Amino acid sequence: MKKPIGVALLGLGTVGGGTYRILENRKKEIEQRLGVPVEVKKVLVRDVNKARTTAVPQALLTDKPAGIMEDQEIAIVVELMGGIEPAFTYIKEALKAGKSVVTANKDLMALHGGELLALAESNGVDLEFEASVAGGIPIIRPLKVCLAGNRMEELKGIINGTTNFILTKMTQEGSDFAEVLKEAQDLGYAEADPTSDVEGLDAARKLAILASIAFNTRVALDKVYVEGITKISARDIEYAREMGYTIKLLGIAKEQEGQVEARVHPAMIPSYHPLAAVNDAFNAIFVRGDAVGDAMFYGRGAGDLPTGSAVVGDIIDAARNYTRQNQGRISCTCYDEKPVKSFGKIVCRYYLRLRVSDKPGVLAAIAGVLGDHEVSIQTVIQKEHVGKDAEIVLVTHKVKEENLQKALQILEAMDIVEKINNVIRVEQD
Amino acid sequence: MKKPIGVALLGLGTVGGGTYRILENRKKEIEQRLGVPVEVKKVLVRDVNKARTTAVPQALLTDKPAGIMEDQEIAIVVELMGGIEPAFTYIKEALKAGKSVVTANKDLMALHGGELLALAESNGVDLEFEASVAGGIPIIRPLKVCLAGNRMEELKGIINGTTNFILTKMTQEGSDFAEVLKEAQDLGYAEADPTSDVEGLDAARKLAILASIAFNTRVALDKVYVEGITKISARDIEYAREMGYTIKLLGIAKEQEGQVEARVHPAMIPSYHPLAAVNDAFNAIFVRGDAVGDAMFYGRGAGDLPTGSAVVGDIIDAARNYTRQNQGRISCTCYDEKPVKSFGKIVCRYYLRLRVSDKPGVLAAIAGVLGDHEVSIQTVIQKEHVGKDAEIVLVTHKVKEENLQKALQILEAMDIVEKINNVIRVEQD
Repeated sequence: MKKPIGVALLGLGTVGGGTYRILENRKKEIEQRLGVPVEVKKVLVRDVNKARTTAVPQALLTDKPAGIMEDQEIAIVVELMGGIEPAFTYIKEALKAGKSVVTANKDLMALHGGELLALAESNGVDLEFEASVAGGIPIIRPLKVCLAGNRMEELKGIINGTTNFILTKMTQEGSDFAEVLKEAQDLGYAEADPTSDVEGLDAARKLAILASIAFNTRVALDKVYVEGITKISARDIEYAREMGYTIKLLGIAKEQEGQVEARVHPAMIPSYHPLAAVNDAFNAIFVRGDAVGDAMFYGRGAGDLPTGSAVVGDIIDAARNYTRQNQGRISCTCYDEKPVKSFGKIVCRYYLRLRVSDKPGVLAAIAGVLGDHEVSIQTVIQKEHVGKDAEIVLVTHKVKEENLQKALQILEAMDIVEKINNVIRVEQD
Repeated sequence: MKKPIGVALLGLGTVGGGTYRILENRKKEIEQRLGVPVEVKKVLVRDVNKARTTAVPQALLTDKPAGIMEDQEIAIVVELMGGIEPAFTYIKEALKAGKSVVTANKDLMALHGGELLALAESNGVDLEFEASVAGGIPIIRPLKVCLAGNRMEELKGIINGTTNFILTKMTQEGSDFAEVLKEAQDLGYAEADPTSDVEGLDAARKLAILASIAFNTRVALDKVYVEGITKISARDIEYAREMGYTIKLLGIAKEQEGQVEARVHPAMIPSYHPLAAVNDAFNAIFVRGDAVGDAMFYGRGAGDLPTGSAVVGDIIDAARNYTRQNQGRISCTCYDEKPVKSFGKIVCRYYLRLRVSDKPGVLAAIAGVLGDHEVSIQTVIQKEHVGKDAEIVLVTHKVKEENLQKALQILEAMDIVEKINNVIRVEQD
């Protein structure tokens, strides 16, 4: 028997457990594929005596990271702890010890991906992170390898399962945000503190990673504009449906004239767009390249086995590089430096829902203000009456974000405008 | 400047032209990515003096394959001629000469993929063929690498753009096959002789390749059951719609109890299935793995630039292996041998549309014959009258194909059955 490739798992939570089970279940096939077995030698946990759902031999458990870093039999360290520290320190130690690293850690890759990839490169080892974005969906390797001949024009992703579950329910049942959030929490689809998901922060981390790969330039997390879904109402969804749109929380990145834009916010997309049919907790990433045209990658964005699937794919790839003494084969692909556009400069279409006084000339006045800021109107719906007020819904043609914001400020100050109920960007070519 | 990696293109048709243009347009970025430039050194054509749509320097054109095989500066040979010969011979010569090969040739890979991959392996070079299936959609590398930890359960693909265009038009416009085929031919979506597309042969080749990769066993083309879309009528599509189904030409492969099944035929799928929304000439491959769950890959399955995108992705990958002296990194993944189930043994649900005498007891008699063959009925629709005949539409529960066929033979011989208008398989879990 050939000498097995030793693997250490850091963390045995949801994804750690899934990864361990896949490696065990597929032991034989992985050996057939690689020619050598892959063997989990150590599993780092905080408490070696804690009861666990995944049956791991007690002898593998350790609470001492140093023993892993020093172990010459361990070629691949798999970080599945999440969060910044101590994961960041452990990964750096593993890379410096000449071990390849596989990670599912989006927080870390979004914040320190550049540094870690450089460290992997200088140590001649692999740092693979397919599982850090969109769970089991193959997207990082397809972008880095299969689509490498393309100049990417845009990437649009449904990359947070919790918010997609909530928006799908709201759309199907006509219910409001708070109600569905409660349901999602009861079902385990949303956490007790849902902030990171519903405010778009989780999606922003994944978008920073994806945009960096798609446009071959490091897109820093703090350059990503972020807006969550808490203000979306059943009413907005109903208006969207009437006009042929579906509301999704999208991570959007584009490159135009050498500048990159990156933003996470709820958006209306045409209901015929492939992303509009991505429902429940599913994720999907839609890309447009100058050669490939439109392509989309769809699947489960989270969960023990889906995310474990991506982790194990990376482990097998890193193991192959190890057996062929060819580690560090594909490293950082941010070979370029492109500025990130300030958010005010993006160009978009907008849906505005306004409560206005129900009297003659109101629409003309509003249209006048918009026109003064180069906002031209494509669609107007006015039908609902709320006491002596009316509700006006407008969809604009393409306009610069900063122009729209200036117009909104003026509208907000006008007597005839009772309230700007909502503003949602419309993503349509 | 570093010494460029020399590439030869065999063929300068649609895909050859697209590939050349992408390599030229993205010259700088490819060099940034690889650290060395990729340079087209020779282009094999039949007639060096023919006028061409893709502007290639005359000095690159040659009609002598031997000059390419002998050229030590050429590391990668890209076969884009299509068909079996002389492509088969040229690829073998290139592999034997120690050159890596990239090909978009589905006919060849479906028939001789095993032999060619073995030859690549024994010569320590790469044979990459992402472009041979589903044009620009990354699917072969995702299956071979990203999803390598999965036991694949099933793969269902819309892998022929012509038939998907035709079925989409038939569905949207209520028109019949012959009419839409004509339109597709006028638009250039279907060839003058459309046999290979509409009879499912093109899809069968791609399915043989995909099934071999998904299930890690060589699935021979002649083991794939093939049935085309020529018998699908506007009436079938309308009945399907009423019952919540969409008709697509699918390539289906599954593994159950160590046996593989592989078949291409029109199928009804639930309209909520992600494949049901794949319209026009788009392709998509849906897979289900034991870890990843459901995933789908969507994009353009043909065309100069989409297919060229996949070819260039492979060229960059092969070039990277070449610069790192690591050719032959991923070779054949058919490490197993699994029998292909005979078609009579597959289990499926079926839609039957029958013209029957319009008199009492007919349905009971038909149900009796089906029951005798263990075919149980899920849905019955009876509403249309054609003179003194009636039309009955049945959807069965799951049943073995051979049982259904026996029942159909008996039904066909019955006096009360005027005609079995159509039988379409229903793919639903």
